[in-house]
Amino acid sequence: MKAVVFNDSLKLVNDYAKPQPKKDEALIRVLMAGICNTDFEITKGYMGYNGILGHEFVGIVEEINGEDKSLLKKRVVGEINFGCMDCDYCAKGLQRHCFNRQTLGIWKKDGCMAEYVTMPVKNLLVVPDNVSDEEAVMVEPLAAALEILEQLHIKPFEKVLVLGDGKLGLTIALALSSAGLDVTQVGKHSNKLDITAKQGVKTVLLNDLKITKTWDVVVEATGSINGFETAIALTKPRGVLVLKSTVASGKEFNFAPIVIDEITVLGSRCGQFAPALRLLEQKRIDFKPLISDVYNVDNALEAFEKNKDKSSIKVLIKF
Amino acid sequence: MKAVVFNDSLKLVNDYAKPQPKKDEALIRVLMAGICNTDFEITKGYMGYNGILGHEFVGIVEEINGEDKSLLKKRVVGEINFGCMDCDYCAKGLQRHCFNRQTLGIWKKDGCMAEYVTMPVKNLLVVPDNVSDEEAVMVEPLAAALEILEQLHIKPFEKVLVLGDGKLGLTIALALSSAGLDVTQVGKHSNKLDITAKQGVKTVLLNDLKITKTWDVVVEATGSINGFETAIALTKPRGVLVLKSTVASGKEFNFAPIVIDEITVLGSRCGQFAPALRLLEQKRIDFKPLISDVYNVDNALEAFEKNKDKSSIKVLIKF
Repeated sequence: MKAVVFNDSLKLVNDYAKPQPKKDEALIRVLMAGICNTDFEITKGYMGYNGILGHEFVGIVEEINGEDKSLLKKRVVGEINFGCMDCDYCAKGLQRHCFNRQTLGIWKKDGCMAEYVTMPVKNLLVVPDNVSDEEAVMVEPLAAALEILEQLHIKPFEKVLVLGDGKLGLTIALALSSAGLDVTQVGKHSNKLDITAKQGVKTVLLNDLKITKTWDVVVEATGSINGFETAIALTKPRGVLVLKSTVASGKEFNFAPIVIDEITVLGSRCGQFAPALRLLEQKRIDFKPLISDVYNVDNALEAFEKNKDKSSIKVLIKF
Repeated sequence: MKAVVFNDSLKLVNDYAKPQPKKDEALIRVLMAGICNTDFEITKGYMGYNGILGHEFVGIVEEINGEDKSLLKKRVVGEINFGCMDCDYCAKGLQRHCFNRQTLGIWKKDGCMAEYVTMPVKNLLVVPDNVSDEEAVMVEPLAAALEILEQLHIKPFEKVLVLGDGKLGLTIALALSSAGLDVTQVGKHSNKLDITAKQGVKTVLLNDLKITKTWDVVVEATGSINGFETAIALTKPRGVLVLKSTVASGKEFNFAPIVIDEITVLGSRCGQFAPALRLLEQKRIDFKPLISDVYNVDNALEAFEKNKDKSSIKVLIKF
């Protein structure tokens, strides 16, 4: 089968072995997969991962190795963390923190940028008919954005600032705004900010932003250490800074303001899919303006190149 | 009056002008003051502070500029943050986060390492008779340790690790243990760890500590960037890392584990005095073993030198 593989370098492989579903797993024919910044990070060495890339997809269940065949032929999306189901984390529904987990296309498990992918049946959710393939691929990043609401009680009167207008920042701003919150988004690209501005988000260009410690909740979604420093300078005393992108500091970094202002820095990663699917089914978010391009798998490497362009937002790969 | 002053360098001044209490302020004759690591930080440039050092004291009220004289002649301690009393933070009792605050001996207000200090009457608390002067000086750092319990609900079954066995780490371990929590303290000095071990804290030498992500709450009290990195490596997924000392990184620092494990980093600073006084009155903590030396003010500079010694814990200055 065709697969987009990272193995010290990124390549399109045409004869990758088709996977076989193990016990209680499904074989899924992938319709569409999304490129995430994490995929780019992996190509730079993140997690030391080698294998098929991809953790955002929609597909059709073609085979089930197990007794319950009810999902056969269904169009599905799948939660990307596979836990041991034996530990305390799994018992609490937190497979994403299981110490023995596999994570699709990120950790110890081939990803979904291929014609076929296998995963545990219990991780699958049926996509409602009124949700398009393009929207369904956005369920994973939308769930990660909604994770903030699982971790943190943001009150209706609180002021939320999202730093960054890449695909992550846009998705987070739309997700939090869809919950009726008072969301302002900051970025460098007015064309990107226009997308969220049309859906109820207040937007401001970075150059026009007044740096004051007045925001109850600041979400860092720039992926840069400068963004993190700016986020600290914007979070009010006793406020919450949500760290949503993995950043590293190559320079002197001062943690004192976190202590002095008693800021809570909240790391936030993957979320549950069901609430994300519900928002899409109820048409509470319009993700179409985020989709910059859809490439056929044969042009997958070109898709990655295209997505490096700052003007590009979300790039999908069709199988 | 005699005063320990930092003004580009540390000095003992013998003829510092005696302060006059403003409206609703008290003039306090200082009996004893404590040296805190923050004082050492100030001598390295922290907060750009110049003036009389010191924010830990016990003293006698000698004069009150105001109608209510009930505290005259009383032995008192005083909360160190003076808020505007007009803003939202002050309205919530969070003067320590008022944007227009002064902080005793740290920010825009002469400190208490002097024969006399003035402060708002409303910041004063009477010291119970059964609390010694030496113990009363510890109310400020104890309150800062108890601040963790104001910010964070630590459950009785959760495992708490305190990193560091300096005066900050020892005070935090004793404070959290006095609340009946399951506290383990890690340090490099068995003689210091013995102090908390005798008061219900489990202790372990750093070299013997197994680095596993199994701790619900980790308190960083080493003041070093290496301590912060170790703290991250010990905090369980979805756990809380309390940042209690102001650290700076001069090297590459990777924030990714905070995101991947969804760790909450909680900055924590000053706390309220009343709960600290209550613990001392009820003899729930014995601070005597922490007091390494008591110096007369005439030997204050020697006291600072002595406190640089790793074998020294808390050094007090007597007036």
